Amino acid sequence: MGSGTDTSASSAPREKRIELLDTTLRDGVQGEGINFSLQDKFTVIQALDELGVPWIEAGSPGSNPKDVELFRAAQGISLKNAALCSFGSTRRPDTAPEKDPQLQSLLDAETGALTIFGKSWDFHVHQVLRVNLEENLAMISQTIEWLKTRGRIVFFDAEHFFDGWKENSGYALATIRAARAAGADRVVLCDTNGGTFPADIAAAVAAARQVLNEDASSNTGREPLLGIHAHNDTGLAIANTLAAIQEGCRHVQGTLVGFGERCGNTSLAALIPSLELKLGYTCLPAGKLPHISEITRRVAETANVPIPAAMPYVGSSAFSHKGGMHSDGILKTAKSFEHIDPAAVGNDRHLLMSEVGGRSVIAERAKKIEPSITREHPAVSALTEKLKALEAGGWAFEGAGASFELLVRRELGRYKPLFRILAYRVMSEHPTGESIACSQAWAKVWVDGQDEIAAAEGEGPVNALDGALRRALVRFYPDLDQVRLTDYKVRVIDGMAATAAKVRVLIESTDGPNVWTTVGVSADIIDASRSALVDSIEYKLIGDIERKFKAYP
Amino acid sequence: MGSGTDTSASSAPREKRIELLDTTLRDGVQGEGINFSLQDKFTVIQALDELGVPWIEAGSPGSNPKDVELFRAAQGISLKNAALCSFGSTRRPDTAPEKDPQLQSLLDAETGALTIFGKSWDFHVHQVLRVNLEENLAMISQTIEWLKTRGRIVFFDAEHFFDGWKENSGYALATIRAARAAGADRVVLCDTNGGTFPADIAAAVAAARQVLNEDASSNTGREPLLGIHAHNDTGLAIANTLAAIQEGCRHVQGTLVGFGERCGNTSLAALIPSLELKLGYTCLPAGKLPHISEITRRVAETANVPIPAAMPYVGSSAFSHKGGMHSDGILKTAKSFEHIDPAAVGNDRHLLMSEVGGRSVIAERAKKIEPSITREHPAVSALTEKLKALEAGGWAFEGAGASFELLVRRELGRYKPLFRILAYRVMSEHPTGESIACSQAWAKVWVDGQDEIAAAEGEGPVNALDGALRRALVRFYPDLDQVRLTDYKVRVIDGMAATAAKVRVLIESTDGPNVWTTVGVSADIIDASRSALVDSIEYKLIGDIERKFKAYP
Repeated sequence: MGSGTDTSASSAPREKRIELLDTTLRDGVQGEGINFSLQDKFTVIQALDELGVPWIEAGSPGSNPKDVELFRAAQGISLKNAALCSFGSTRRPDTAPEKDPQLQSLLDAETGALTIFGKSWDFHVHQVLRVNLEENLAMISQTIEWLKTRGRIVFFDAEHFFDGWKENSGYALATIRAARAAGADRVVLCDTNGGTFPADIAAAVAAARQVLNEDASSNTGREPLLGIHAHNDTGLAIANTLAAIQEGCRHVQGTLVGFGERCGNTSLAALIPSLELKLGYTCLPAGKLPHISEITRRVAETANVPIPAAMPYVGSSAFSHKGGMHSDGILKTAKSFEHIDPAAVGNDRHLLMSEVGGRSVIAERAKKIEPSITREHPAVSALTEKLKALEAGGWAFEGAGASFELLVRRELGRYKPLFRILAYRVMSEHPTGESIACSQAWAKVWVDGQDEIAAAEGEGPVNALDGALRRALVRFYPDLDQVRLTDYKVRVIDGMAATAAKVRVLIESTDGPNVWTTVGVSADIIDASRSALVDSIEYKLIGDIERKFKAYP
Repeated sequence: MGSGTDTSASSAPREKRIELLDTTLRDGVQGEGINFSLQDKFTVIQALDELGVPWIEAGSPGSNPKDVELFRAAQGISLKNAALCSFGSTRRPDTAPEKDPQLQSLLDAETGALTIFGKSWDFHVHQVLRVNLEENLAMISQTIEWLKTRGRIVFFDAEHFFDGWKENSGYALATIRAARAAGADRVVLCDTNGGTFPADIAAAVAAARQVLNEDASSNTGREPLLGIHAHNDTGLAIANTLAAIQEGCRHVQGTLVGFGERCGNTSLAALIPSLELKLGYTCLPAGKLPHISEITRRVAETANVPIPAAMPYVGSSAFSHKGGMHSDGILKTAKSFEHIDPAAVGNDRHLLMSEVGGRSVIAERAKKIEPSITREHPAVSALTEKLKALEAGGWAFEGAGASFELLVRRELGRYKPLFRILAYRVMSEHPTGESIACSQAWAKVWVDGQDEIAAAEGEGPVNALDGALRRALVRFYPDLDQVRLTDYKVRVIDGMAATAAKVRVLIESTDGPNVWTTVGVSADIIDASRSALVDSIEYKLIGDIERKFKAYP
């Protein structure tokens, strides 16, 4: 696991370095419709680590038993740039920290750093917490002190700091003074309800900075890093974060895609490029920014949520030009209608994701099949064109490396079909008889001059088709017996066409040692699934042949 | 047609009045995937008029023949609050205005007001327009003068004003000085590439205001209203618009939903509530703000694009609370976790029905069906238990208010089935015959002692089942003809079980004025869809009966 204490390998001066904390797995999952399985969470962690985010707030072990499991499992993983932190609250009222099971479970998560949120709005102390103002200050101090004596890095999230500052600035400042005196390593000012304007953010941050500076001279001399945590309820999360940075915040919390409760958190993907390309700050390790479009899409895909096409910097439309006048201008000189070079964030002037990494990325991946391939190889141009056409039709290969590999093989002429589906039929009925499942299917396949038909019933039409197909093929390819499908995702591509919309199906398969993912797209979910199932089986069979004979075809 | 010259009937002082211009039909349609038929455009115009937007920029008759048709057709319509304006550019280089067909077609549109855009960035004058700087100033002056002598209200859009101001502020200011001297009624500063930060916007607006003030004393004495036109390429369109207002802009351009080229224009729906509820400005006629959520949704629906759930103020998740702690807090006092009262913008608080929601949340929602329900009502306990069991089985009602309402009705005994599905069968096959779609279905229903069977084919099995079901029912319930499905979502609940996993289907339906969402869960996607479809139909029928007879059952 990375140290998480330095934001990058950069030699930028300290005042131009921004320390990021991504809370997709904690605040992000408060967003409506955002859910991650345990496996999904690790996919997100790996993606954020790859991007170079130093801190990943991964869950609340004190309030969510599933997060306990996550932190336990996380102890085995190795990260290059990031460190995980856990999230919890100040101790219970009138309870010693060591007697608070929530704090104990935070320690049990065994992260080097922890975020503790406490109340900075007197109204909340009275109305929600229902304790007196002094007890709340004691809760903050004692919790942080207790964790510091146990060797932890402590981030103090001052909940509702800005609402508190508007109504009782003295008390709001007292809460962060208490956190600072107790030894907090970061003091993070939170616009929890998301309703504050940039000018108020700036004024409150300036006041907070003054308080922390004062105390720094009278105390340990080590001033905590000031942080900002904004929400987008007035469409100002990014503006508010920038206003806070302008006033001295150097720790920035958000979620990569912008997932979060209500209108979401500050989207780090929409913020980082402004900071790095336009304002001279350093957020990520050198060379990482061009990966931000792809990694942001990957995190969104994992949540089974598409990023908005119009999302700043990383959206598929962010550099699209429809107006004839603008397109003309772009051809005369790109600067005329583009505020940055899209390549700087790994996006492209063209609309399709295939263009994101461009030819170099395609060449890179084609090398896995044929090591002699370079960027200039004619197959790379042909693949780029093919990808464009497929992606215009709703295909996406980012999460489906096995299907992409088959596409490359076909283009390189290193592919020979190992079977054909001659016909299939899938039926779902209601009511069902007592002796048959709700769905049934048969499939007839052809392999090398012979054919075979098999039937299966299943829990739903795709399950039945999968069963029939594999039963028919296993006579020819007994190794298919080891293959299991481990994940199945469905994405409606054009929701507005409702039940006639295109769907994209992603299937994850395993044969024990290997895991691979394939994709299929169709207006018919059965047909899309058939396509992804066929890719999955072919990928397995081709891999086996190559491993056995060191060559294919 | 309204006069369009006054922003509202309000008696707010002039400095607190904001004049809106919506350009959904001009700049908005530059957005990827945004297209309107002629009929759609009138739907949008009526919606904006109903909201009380004073100016609607409806098209570019000089460059788009379809817009010529629109303005011709518009001459017959009557609007209460709004006036249309047409959009065009300064005259061609080295051409007299009366010889420029583009300007002639603008006049032919016969709108009282026109927007003329001209170049304020010297770089663009040289590189894109390819004329010298003096000719560009003459193009601005002469075009505006010519239109003014023809009695038009002229809005001057200073294209790329902020980029121009950064590189050659003297020249950028000279262009607006020329516009003002020629008699422009509005001078609108455009951040055409969307890459400017709020601080730069503020500085440039202040400089522009000073220039317009100077000239006001030396010329006609009538100072044009200063305007702002922002884009969202750095996620700062709203912040930039607020910064410009802060410095004196009182004319604000944007698109209601935020549609627009690349990352979109300033979303007026996300901006207006901040201006009216928090900053003391008046933008809309009195009483209109509570209609903004519904009207924004209607405009988005017309473009066949859903508004983002997380959209500030008007999105379906804008006031959603998922975390148990926040839900508790909201019930103790709404202010604790909400920055405004959702009713002020015609939105609703959604307390998500997750396992953490608890009895209070359930009672709150049950009150919509039966106002006498309290937290202590036995039905609330029963519902809590039922919800727990359903959610453990993969159901989620957070996005499916209509299904939840049916659940409450059943528990309260305020439900009687209006039809039954006796049987159905859905078939998907490959290869298909030439004369039939890949999926076919039949469904047999029972309504009040009679039965009916109908068949349909479709793009996929669910589309076919939906067709068959509604064809069978429409004989008994002709109003079902008006119902359309507008969104269809599939989520695999336990991906690890792969194709045998449970799936959750969410269906969004509309009958025109109302929109509702229903849910179904099953291991069989057909069965889950059937369940959500049945709920959707029942919700519609029950609602109609209640509205007609003021009681149900």
